[in-house]
Amino acid sequence: MQKKVEENYLESIKNKIPKTLFSQIQYAISLGGKKLRPNLLYYSYKTVSKNNSKIKFEDAKTFALAIELLHNFTLIHDDIMDNAKIRRGKITLYEKFGTSSAILVGDTIVSLAYEKILETKNLDAIKIFTKSFLDVCCGQEMDRNFSLSKKNISLSKYFEMINLKTASLISASCEIGAIIACGTQNEIKSITNFGKNLGIAFQIQDDILDLYSNENVFGKKIGGDILEEKQTYLTVKTNELATLNEKKLLKKLFIEIKKTKSQKKIIEVKSIFDKLKIVKYAKLDIQNFMQKALNQIEPNKKKLLFNFSQSLLNRKF
Amino acid sequence: MQKKVEENYLESIKNKIPKTLFSQIQYAISLGGKKLRPNLLYYSYKTVSKNNSKIKFEDAKTFALAIELLHNFTLIHDDIMDNAKIRRGKITLYEKFGTSSAILVGDTIVSLAYEKILETKNLDAIKIFTKSFLDVCCGQEMDRNFSLSKKNISLSKYFEMINLKTASLISASCEIGAIIACGTQNEIKSITNFGKNLGIAFQIQDDILDLYSNENVFGKKIGGDILEEKQTYLTVKTNELATLNEKKLLKKLFIEIKKTKSQKKIIEVKSIFDKLKIVKYAKLDIQNFMQKALNQIEPNKKKLLFNFSQSLLNRKF
Repeated sequence: MQKKVEENYLESIKNKIPKTLFSQIQYAISLGGKKLRPNLLYYSYKTVSKNNSKIKFEDAKTFALAIELLHNFTLIHDDIMDNAKIRRGKITLYEKFGTSSAILVGDTIVSLAYEKILETKNLDAIKIFTKSFLDVCCGQEMDRNFSLSKKNISLSKYFEMINLKTASLISASCEIGAIIACGTQNEIKSITNFGKNLGIAFQIQDDILDLYSNENVFGKKIGGDILEEKQTYLTVKTNELATLNEKKLLKKLFIEIKKTKSQKKIIEVKSIFDKLKIVKYAKLDIQNFMQKALNQIEPNKKKLLFNFSQSLLNRKF
Repeated sequence: MQKKVEENYLESIKNKIPKTLFSQIQYAISLGGKKLRPNLLYYSYKTVSKNNSKIKFEDAKTFALAIELLHNFTLIHDDIMDNAKIRRGKITLYEKFGTSSAILVGDTIVSLAYEKILETKNLDAIKIFTKSFLDVCCGQEMDRNFSLSKKNISLSKYFEMINLKTASLISASCEIGAIIACGTQNEIKSITNFGKNLGIAFQIQDDILDLYSNENVFGKKIGGDILEEKQTYLTVKTNELATLNEKKLLKKLFIEIKKTKSQKKIIEVKSIFDKLKIVKYAKLDIQNFMQKALNQIEPNKKKLLFNFSQSLLNRKF
């Protein structure tokens, strides 16, 4: 459904913005993706909604579209900052059209997203959307400040960062779905917490896939996080468990990778992660956060969100 | 007053965003500027308002702050796209902190602006704000598509571009002021048209100052538009009036300037503008648009906006 919503939307804006800008927005949106956030918004709406109001469902569709637009905007601007050349198996917008175009396309997408959600007149939902927009910016700044070649960070700092950078928009999707469905305060709170925990689990899994997936399946360069000197669950957890010698060796490897981009050195880093069984810890944490997420939802209402969460957990991309 | 509002605002967000991000936002905002848009919003509010509601005036202050934030965001991102090193006499954000930081600071400022205006719950005003945000993006794209070394553009295309890129946010400032003041449909329409015409006059003047001002006073590099291959009133009007030979010579000069950045060649371009008395035409057009602007306002309510417009017209920066 989401694909059709996006196609119709593109058609509706085609003639009101410059052609060159439109074709770039079309390119960005046609890159696809998992549609995690729109789907979560729909499922949260359906989980909470007591009746089948057509008008309310239209509002849910509008916000699902806008949340995905906002998510696309963050990817477009992040890819510039991360020098990411490939996204979802295709050339990133900034690599294809240049940095200036990618900046402007991102900005335009934000304005279009606001234009859409204002149609719903749902101020509470627009506020959540905006809070999450700010969170993502703050999370991105924290992420940029963390760097493998600088000082190590704690697991709690890492969680603080992914809470803002990833989990906020995911929980906002759930919260907005529940707000539009006119949920009680308790219902809204529960489903927001569900989203927050799911979002953290999702990001830990993303961190693993960045190194342990296959480029063709994952759609991004394998080991991209290490090449970009990013702190991830893998590096932060390793820092907790590694001996002093292993830490020294890792630091040396990170500096060498920064200089030479050596794939061989990345394999060496991976073997340290493997020795310390970091993926096992990650999987345990993912399961814990998923359990915390599902505990938020009443048993008789779990099915939709449970199935969706399971499919997320089994993803390879 | 606006300066104090901005200082208080910075203080209020100091502890809720990462320190590095805060200090960059502070730098961007402390660059100052003319505060054209906030002032226009206040004056429009005062021109239309029938009573002295404290709550309404607080909303006007909130939107004045947000409009200036949005304006700052456009400058920060435009400076990246235009390779502009100096703005308001100081080093631009991207030159000082790098492209990635400037992208993220701009994005964060937009989210903060929305956070503020949502406090007012004034959906009509938020819609105008958003429309203008989209207009500015579309205008920037048109501006980027126009280039001196590509084909010439007509005066009407130029006006279409500056209408979006400059006049929209200026007229939005007026419109929002009138909306908050609970103006009638006619009052809102008139003051919006005032802003639109003033905005066009303002941009034509800006185009002249870019080449005919003094760097110390103007705060930007003189001839920056030509160096960045931008179509301005000067080049577009010249194209209307120049002989075939002059057009050929100009094209040649623009290509040479693109390659060599030669200040001597810029002086040669200027002498062609002078020969064709382009500044005289520009001044006539500025006066016409200013007159059109002031015709929108009832004579007994003109004083505030008239005085403000006069001070704008006499500006040297």
